[in-house]
Amino acid sequence: MVAKNPPMGWNSWDCYGAAVTEEQVRANAEYMAKYLKDYGWEYVVVDIQWYQPTAGSHEYEPFSDLCMDKYGRLLPAVNRFPSSKGGKGFAPLARYIHSLGLKFGIHIMRGMPRMAAHKNVLIKDSKYTARQVAESNSICMWNPDMYGLRCEECEEGARAYYKSIFELYASWGVDFIKVDDIAREYPKAKREIEIISEELRNCGRDMVLSLSPGPAPLDRAEHLKNYANMWRITDDFWDDWSLLLAMFERAEKWCTHSGPGHWPDADMLPVGALRQCTEKDGWTRFTRDEEKTMMSLWCIMRSPLMVGAELNKNDASTLELLTKKEIIDITKTTHCAHQLYRTDDDIAWIALAKDGKSVYVALFNISDKKRTISFVPEDYDISATKAVELWTGKKIADTASIKQSIAKHGAAVIRFEL
Amino acid sequence: MVAKNPPMGWNSWDCYGAAVTEEQVRANAEYMAKYLKDYGWEYVVVDIQWYQPTAGSHEYEPFSDLCMDKYGRLLPAVNRFPSSKGGKGFAPLARYIHSLGLKFGIHIMRGMPRMAAHKNVLIKDSKYTARQVAESNSICMWNPDMYGLRCEECEEGARAYYKSIFELYASWGVDFIKVDDIAREYPKAKREIEIISEELRNCGRDMVLSLSPGPAPLDRAEHLKNYANMWRITDDFWDDWSLLLAMFERAEKWCTHSGPGHWPDADMLPVGALRQCTEKDGWTRFTRDEEKTMMSLWCIMRSPLMVGAELNKNDASTLELLTKKEIIDITKTTHCAHQLYRTDDDIAWIALAKDGKSVYVALFNISDKKRTISFVPEDYDISATKAVELWTGKKIADTASIKQSIAKHGAAVIRFEL
Amino acid sequence: MVAKNPPMGWNSWDCYGAAVTEEQVRANAEYMAKYLKDYGWEYVVVDIQWYQPTAGSHEYEPFSDLCMDKYGRLLPAVNRFPSSKGGKGFAPLARYIHSLGLKFGIHIMRGMPRMAAHKNVLIKDSKYTARQVAESNSICMWNPDMYGLRCEECEEGARAYYKSIFELYASWGVDFIKVDDIAREYPKAKREIEIISEELRNCGRDMVLSLSPGPAPLDRAEHLKNYANMWRITDDFWDDWSLLLAMFERAEKWCTHSGPGHWPDADMLPVGALRQCTEKDGWTRFTRDEEKTMMSLWCIMRSPLMVGAELNKNDASTLELLTKKEIIDITKTTHCAHQLYRTDDDIAWIALAKDGKSVYVALFNISDKKRTISFVPEDYDISATKAVELWTGKKIADTASIKQSIAKHGAAVIRFEL
Amino acid sequence: MVAKNPPMGWNSWDCYGAAVTEEQVRANAEYMAKYLKDYGWEYVVVDIQWYQPTAGSHEYEPFSDLCMDKYGRLLPAVNRFPSSKGGKGFAPLARYIHSLGLKFGIHIMRGMPRMAAHKNVLIKDSKYTARQVAESNSICMWNPDMYGLRCEECEEGARAYYKSIFELYASWGVDFIKVDDIAREYPKAKREIEIISEELRNCGRDMVLSLSPGPAPLDRAEHLKNYANMWRITDDFWDDWSLLLAMFERAEKWCTHSGPGHWPDADMLPVGALRQCTEKDGWTRFTRDEEKTMMSLWCIMRSPLMVGAELNKNDASTLELLTKKEIIDITKTTHCAHQLYRTDDDIAWIALAKDGKSVYVALFNISDKKRTISFVPEDYDISATKAVELWTGKKIADTASIKQSIAKHGAAVIRFEL
Repeated sequence: MVAKNPPMGWNSWDCYGAAVTEEQVRANAEYMAKYLKDYGWEYVVVDIQWYQPTAGSHEYEPFSDLCMDKYGRLLPAVNRFPSSKGGKGFAPLARYIHSLGLKFGIHIMRGMPRMAAHKNVLIKDSKYTARQVAESNSICMWNPDMYGLRCEECEEGARAYYKSIFELYASWGVDFIKVDDIAREYPKAKREIEIISEELRNCGRDMVLSLSPGPAPLDRAEHLKNYANMWRITDDFWDDWSLLLAMFERAEKWCTHSGPGHWPDADMLPVGALRQCTEKDGWTRFTRDEEKTMMSLWCIMRSPLMVGAELNKNDASTLELLTKKEIIDITKTTHCAHQLYRTDDDIAWIALAKDGKSVYVALFNISDKKRTISFVPEDYDISATKAVELWTGKKIADTASIKQSIAKHGAAVIRFEL
Repeated sequence: MVAKNPPMGWNSWDCYGAAVTEEQVRANAEYMAKYLKDYGWEYVVVDIQWYQPTAGSHEYEPFSDLCMDKYGRLLPAVNRFPSSKGGKGFAPLARYIHSLGLKFGIHIMRGMPRMAAHKNVLIKDSKYTARQVAESNSICMWNPDMYGLRCEECEEGARAYYKSIFELYASWGVDFIKVDDIAREYPKAKREIEIISEELRNCGRDMVLSLSPGPAPLDRAEHLKNYANMWRITDDFWDDWSLLLAMFERAEKWCTHSGPGHWPDADMLPVGALRQCTEKDGWTRFTRDEEKTMMSLWCIMRSPLMVGAELNKNDASTLELLTKKEIIDITKTTHCAHQLYRTDDDIAWIALAKDGKSVYVALFNISDKKRTISFVPEDYDISATKAVELWTGKKIADTASIKQSIAKHGAAVIRFEL
Repeated sequence: MVAKNPPMGWNSWDCYGAAVTEEQVRANAEYMAKYLKDYGWEYVVVDIQWYQPTAGSHEYEPFSDLCMDKYGRLLPAVNRFPSSKGGKGFAPLARYIHSLGLKFGIHIMRGMPRMAAHKNVLIKDSKYTARQVAESNSICMWNPDMYGLRCEECEEGARAYYKSIFELYASWGVDFIKVDDIAREYPKAKREIEIISEELRNCGRDMVLSLSPGPAPLDRAEHLKNYANMWRITDDFWDDWSLLLAMFERAEKWCTHSGPGHWPDADMLPVGALRQCTEKDGWTRFTRDEEKTMMSLWCIMRSPLMVGAELNKNDASTLELLTKKEIIDITKTTHCAHQLYRTDDDIAWIALAKDGKSVYVALFNISDKKRTISFVPEDYDISATKAVELWTGKKIADTASIKQSIAKHGAAVIRFEL
Repeated sequence: MVAKNPPMGWNSWDCYGAAVTEEQVRANAEYMAKYLKDYGWEYVVVDIQWYQPTAGSHEYEPFSDLCMDKYGRLLPAVNRFPSSKGGKGFAPLARYIHSLGLKFGIHIMRGMPRMAAHKNVLIKDSKYTARQVAESNSICMWNPDMYGLRCEECEEGARAYYKSIFELYASWGVDFIKVDDIAREYPKAKREIEIISEELRNCGRDMVLSLSPGPAPLDRAEHLKNYANMWRITDDFWDDWSLLLAMFERAEKWCTHSGPGHWPDADMLPVGALRQCTEKDGWTRFTRDEEKTMMSLWCIMRSPLMVGAELNKNDASTLELLTKKEIIDITKTTHCAHQLYRTDDDIAWIALAKDGKSVYVALFNISDKKRTISFVPEDYDISATKAVELWTGKKIADTASIKQSIAKHGAAVIRFEL
């Protein structure tokens, strides 16, 4: 099964925007192999615009000349990804990442390049031209490069195009595809999601299918579970407390839809060195306690975990955050998580170990000052004799009435042994 | 703790409407004590209009003369409840029900009788008159008897009135209060709910607080959890498949809000002999399989269980349904239930034993024909070596890939041993 | 035809609220006869609560004891209207007002007194009791006295009640009925409006039927035109510039629905001495220029004109306003009015003389400073050789390009001779 | 003043779709000059896609190669408009139409050709390239050719482009511009409308500015009046009774916004020979009575009149319709039109002669059978001694109580002499 547990990895967007280079990707992969792999981190994902030679920031450049083969399939820009020279695409880079014991992912946009339609290329192994398959009035509202496909009117042509690109990506050794401009585009993208999913599953190589951007509509949960491995439940998430606080509400709504092979995705973890493409000293604006809250929530809700940091600039604290085994393992060992309650000051979540031997409770202090939060396990059907707080590793003596002092915007995660 | 588990009992509405008599209440209580008590059934609840001498059906009679004491507190109609004669109220009936080892509940409407305001009675132990406390433009849309109280403008008076009635009910020995015309009346009823809850908790006797009618608004879940023990998540539920099918969606939304002391309520169980006040041979329109679906859903979502039948007319099948211990106990032994998936034909729910030793999965066939439903436990993070279907008691041999033949509108409930 | 032109008169609400007395009504009628009658003012209307002995302000008193005959028909409170003594009702007062050459009107609420239903009186000349006809869940949101009638379920009874009261009012000599709690109550009040209208037209005496409060829904314009003579297009209007400014938008939407017998009503004119029941020196907060804007708009849109002042306290300026014949006559001599244009600073309206000999243009300065407003008649299909500004009486020399200096919140009204 | 009265003319869309040729335009212009000019018809308008060599029907062809000069300005397709050969554009055709005593109009889309942006042409007399000015995510939902302009972000460039095209059209002798994909695109098109309007007015030649498609939003009426000469109040109108019936409601809402220079536009008149590009014998589906209703409504509401017929195929009845002088002149001689009333069966409108000497009333039978409609002029403030029905020319004897027998879906128009 693809994505039996929530995927974990690194994505280039938060630190490099549209401008990441092969050198940077390799450096981050090497760091991951060395310091993070043992904790479950495995995917290295190149985000948007890898086919654009002139990309330089988080902005998009309208009408730019993209690298494309004669069938209208985008290729890495050789000036940014030198190993792709000679039409080799991402194969050499993927091979290198695999050699590190990791997996390789790329970002794509729904549809085909506008350039392909205006040039009217032939679609590989098909009788269709790009102009027959592109939908001239289906564009992305925030990116200027693509046309959507005529999935209803010319399904055969649309399938041919998606087949042609997944065949190419499989030949490169890609393990993870993040498809953008699609997850919140219901109802019109419904058919396109189905075709993408089916062609991907038929391409001969296992790849995780991740859908962006959010918020995906909650009332399409069953469709998403059937056709995707993960999907964004939120618009782009950044290092801002108000966005983090807002995630609790989204998490509450989506939590019952998590499970093997299908994961509601709370988006990337903006920790450590960020925005390197435009800010020399870019660093997360989250406090250490906010980072703990984020990790605690993402893990207990079993969100995929994709780090946004330039890993080689990690400080000790960031590395510690990403290697907190007891917290990270919650994504693998629990299920049936949900919010227990919420007041103006506190939020509590519960998750249960799959093996029935323990119960996890996360307590969040969402107020603006340090507070002691009380929790009576019996009030929530928990009957335990042993308990430990996982961030500190401290045993809790009185398991009948728990009191945790938690910093402003901070969290505690308690494991109860049944 | 009041209502540590979902309350279970009998309510007079489905069979007797507004017209139930003491004799009928006693007869049902006796049946419950004899046949049902051992399975957890305990509350005997007299529903609406017990204070109206002329009530004869499920209809309400405008401007009727209600039985009321000099403080504007409603009293049982002596012609219907003879033991209340001489101002004894429900005390004798409650005493009898307690003598059977059961508990006694009554229905009330939000507010005070319009009659009390038009007569301008004095509110007991207060300086207020009914006219000062009643809100002349706060009425119920479907019942003609009451005015709401001026909870904002005259909080002291409103508290005095609610205190006076709960004091009276406590003196009678009431264990359960169903307050009507309130649960879906947010935001305007918010303050009235708080005052009712606080005065009830201060009255010196433990009573379950149940709020009707539904649907209570989901975005008020935290408020309801804080102030009530159970609240209706639906308008009146009756013996109709379309209503039962619709309950799955409500249950899915509310399931994470269940817990000790606070229970989303899917409403009464319309089984057995119903509508006795108007239909001589009234009987549930549910099939036996639909009844199993209903019981399976109510139990796995941990809804309160309130039987609507004239119990003494139960057939063997109905009695069996109400005494299916393995199913009923799910309401007491599990938590963290939620829907696993839903297709056009199937729905699956999961719940986990509090003691960590088992997992329950309910499979529902919502299609219109008998079908075999497959379920792979591993796909849902369940790893078990033993499994049994609880309605039939049959062991399941192959726990890796389960196949259950389920009738149209029927259900299977599987317990996995971890 | 009843109300061939927009009704003009005086109403007790703005100065006396619910508390007006016979003496005050007579004094205002005498003033009207002496100073205003020649300009078209004719109706003297007693507003709400004339049947309540204890009314003292603009507030309503819940559960008060109203004066009522044995058929549940409200009667004037004798302590406030002494001439009604002995069951004579308003007949003596109406007779006096008629003797002044004026007409007499009263306010009623939709429905019957709650008291009548709780007492269960018999409805005159019918087989129905009040309890059969009153709708226990149809109440007014802002007044505590009445129940609506069961116009669908018991039409015959509802007609009998309305017939009985209009018969009584006709016998008193009433010329104008303002029915309240109804004009904005579509769709539920639709049938009640029809029954009221039909019973009023059948009662044997011509009475203007006026519906309140507003805003009546624009999409019911044809229904209102068929069943009422005037209806409020706004909630209560008071002496506040923001309310006056907002009226332009309502007037624009309703203007095409004005015509003989059916008049969109912009509500009372709050000029002169107001709020006499609670403020000793109550006086309009409108500036003289705002009053001119109000009168200009009401007249050019052909709204009914109902003065709110205690007339005997009028100053010279107020009297001049109410006797500005050239402006007031616009309500009688023109038709087909509508807004010509609106900018952030100006609004212009046009109306055409019924006899085709002149065109009226009103220019409003809605900005907060004195400005000169230009107007080129040819741009609006007006070709005239003579023009005069009606508030000042000044001839305009250059009729091809008009420039009017207008004060902040003020107005000019120009009559062009074709 | 441009468009002092509602423009009248012919437009190629209804009969030739996107495929009209010069020969067809000339033939229609010649007919107009010969048979219609004397009645006020003057504009000959070439509709959409005149720059596309392969256009063949009412459909649009994605990614087609449009005729364009080096500055990205569209040019007539020479194969369809031979006189444009050698870069002469529409100048020769315009000259010919002027020689017939008529005026010449063209259709354009908001924005610039996508081709111009993808080719990155230089904008004439400016420092901007097409890629700087085109908005890559502003496209038309129903036509594949254009990008909108960056009117906020690069106003100077947007102005330069619009200036460059209006300069070209002025040099050709264009008298009328229909700008499409804009009238219903508020709020986002607001600034683009302003820039188009200002650049058009500054281009040195008077041209009518017409905005499509509808419905334009009513709450933008003042903006439209300030910046355009006519704007569509409806989506495309065709020969279907339900569309015609629906126009009454739109007309009612917009009627007060008509006036010299600014005309709410009810769209083309689909009469006579239609759909010639795809249906050999295409002919209007309107009955003769429906045509009279359409003409009566369009004229009394003063809508622009644009014939859709292939004029040379007109039958006698169609020619008579288009030359009914007494009806057509209503658009020029009246003002202040509005609906008088509407029932399930009838609608009546009124308009007043600008010279004050007559009143026009149109009576419409919207029911499905022939009926006699009564009209009492006095009920609507009309006092006349002479009256004539204009479609028949018959004098009306009894002007106090008019009865007109009107066919199903038909109309009568009465002129009253004051």
